[in-house]
Amino acid sequence: MSAASPHYVALSGGVGGAKLSLGLASLLAERLSLIVNTGDDFEHLGLYVSPDLDTALYTLAGVVNPVTGWGLSGETWTFMAALAKLGGPGWFKLGDGDLATHVLRTERLKSGATLTAVCAELARHFSIAARLLPMCDEPLRTLVETDVGTLAFQDYFVREQCRPRVRQIRFAGVPQAKPTAQVLAALANPLLAGIIICPSNPYLSVDPILAVPGLRAALKRVGAPIVAVSPLIAGQAVKGPTAKIMAELGVAADSRSVARYYAGLVDGFIIDAADAGLAADIAPPVKVTKTLMATLDDKIALARTCLAFCGELGAAGAAAGPVLTQR
Amino acid sequence: MSAASPHYVALSGGVGGAKLSLGLASLLAERLSLIVNTGDDFEHLGLYVSPDLDTALYTLAGVVNPVTGWGLSGETWTFMAALAKLGGPGWFKLGDGDLATHVLRTERLKSGATLTAVCAELARHFSIAARLLPMCDEPLRTLVETDVGTLAFQDYFVREQCRPRVRQIRFAGVPQAKPTAQVLAALANPLLAGIIICPSNPYLSVDPILAVPGLRAALKRVGAPIVAVSPLIAGQAVKGPTAKIMAELGVAADSRSVARYYAGLVDGFIIDAADAGLAADIAPPVKVTKTLMATLDDKIALARTCLAFCGELGAAGAAAGPVLTQR
Repeated sequence: MSAASPHYVALSGGVGGAKLSLGLASLLAERLSLIVNTGDDFEHLGLYVSPDLDTALYTLAGVVNPVTGWGLSGETWTFMAALAKLGGPGWFKLGDGDLATHVLRTERLKSGATLTAVCAELARHFSIAARLLPMCDEPLRTLVETDVGTLAFQDYFVREQCRPRVRQIRFAGVPQAKPTAQVLAALANPLLAGIIICPSNPYLSVDPILAVPGLRAALKRVGAPIVAVSPLIAGQAVKGPTAKIMAELGVAADSRSVARYYAGLVDGFIIDAADAGLAADIAPPVKVTKTLMATLDDKIALARTCLAFCGELGAAGAAAGPVLTQR
Repeated sequence: MSAASPHYVALSGGVGGAKLSLGLASLLAERLSLIVNTGDDFEHLGLYVSPDLDTALYTLAGVVNPVTGWGLSGETWTFMAALAKLGGPGWFKLGDGDLATHVLRTERLKSGATLTAVCAELARHFSIAARLLPMCDEPLRTLVETDVGTLAFQDYFVREQCRPRVRQIRFAGVPQAKPTAQVLAALANPLLAGIIICPSNPYLSVDPILAVPGLRAALKRVGAPIVAVSPLIAGQAVKGPTAKIMAELGVAADSRSVARYYAGLVDGFIIDAADAGLAADIAPPVKVTKTLMATLDDKIALARTCLAFCGELGAAGAAAGPVLTQR
């Protein structure tokens, strides 16, 4: 890597975001800093569980279950079977190997380590070159207001399987949260050439990151292009409840709505070829490509498109002079 | 069960004690209260691990690993493999199914439940009829003074594989410990017909129980015969470091020394047929029988001998009048 090799920051939630993250990490290695949503984190059976961080960790380590997109490949489930016999809760599945991550992290956190430090330790053991950064070290928790009351994120997402109608999504712990030194350092890197918002759920996965006080402003101060990839293809999410939630929130479930949601933040928006017809209705510059990532090649190809798009937008911004920095 | 069916209390450590406990439980079911050593308990990876209670639990539930005598049968080890990859400690083996016990117990203890209450819950889920009672709810911890310094019990027993020379065994937390209401209730049961000290290590497994302030006095107050089974056969322990420790403490490693160790406490002493020649040198009444328990039949047969011996001693005591109650 030459001293002038560009660095990138990506923002990611769970499975969909991790797929693009893997593509980006394949191209960038240590030149990628991944800021991951921790709004889904929760304590379960006394263990600190961080679903999106673990999905990123396992995906970048190449050990993720390829069928589910989360959890470990080759996982066993003896713990859950024993737990059931002892009357323990079965709604959140903890694989035997996955438990090692939760147990170690919980112990390290209890001994006073930050989530950022523990995440770096885990990433090092998995030989991950990219920097895996929790969005913050404080508990900032996603709460879902639904027709059956306020639900903690995992209660909504896993226990209730996203069945309740969403009325509002809010975050607890916002005033206490702040961007970590590591996140701020990644954003202050003079070699930073672009920021990519992965195709994650804008409401449930990206919004918690943007809710960390000062993080949105820090992203906008960077001066490098911010590019978002729509998580919707022809009005459907590849995985997860994005479309259902948008409909329940009274928003048309299509990429135009996602682009509007990111208005004022992003400089470029990437949509799937299936949505090419929507491009004219999207305000920032649009790139149309294949966003469905079935294979590693798909992930790398989409990552390449993201980086190239950042390059184009950066060059245009540089040509236009100070405009970009006023974004 | 008739209203007048005799009840029994047994004191037990780990594997050897659990074998006789299973024999006793097979004969007595809910008429057995088992007081179990918790001096070996420790916190590992943030989990509260109670080796002797778990061995008793799994043995009485019929789910113990028949090869090792501890842990679960049909266990898997995915957690330990994953832990090793993450740089976690490998010296104490936590099976995947076994983890469910530790995780649930740790969570219940954290939420304020006593060890006794959690133990009862676990026993209920395993459909164990006998009462499984920790010796106390407070942390009373076995410490081993050795030629390489003071070692916490599991560090000596598992990590160091009992290799260091033992100079002294002592217990931390004694002043804070007290017999539980459940232990005292079992000992105050008017139907109590005998107390059996299982063939556990006197120094490492039975002594911590007797070190609980007031417990030894409560045992002696009962008035029912106390019978101990020697853990040594021809100077050797069936399992564990009993003989090695006795030698290091300067005591002849045979059943006579064990009987002397229990002097003033027990009313009868059971030794193996291989040690019949030692009977004349043992002060309390001696019963010679087969104490090696390879099969369930062996365990039940030894349990029967214990109960019969209690009966004989009780009848003799009753015939002798007030002598027994002055013991």
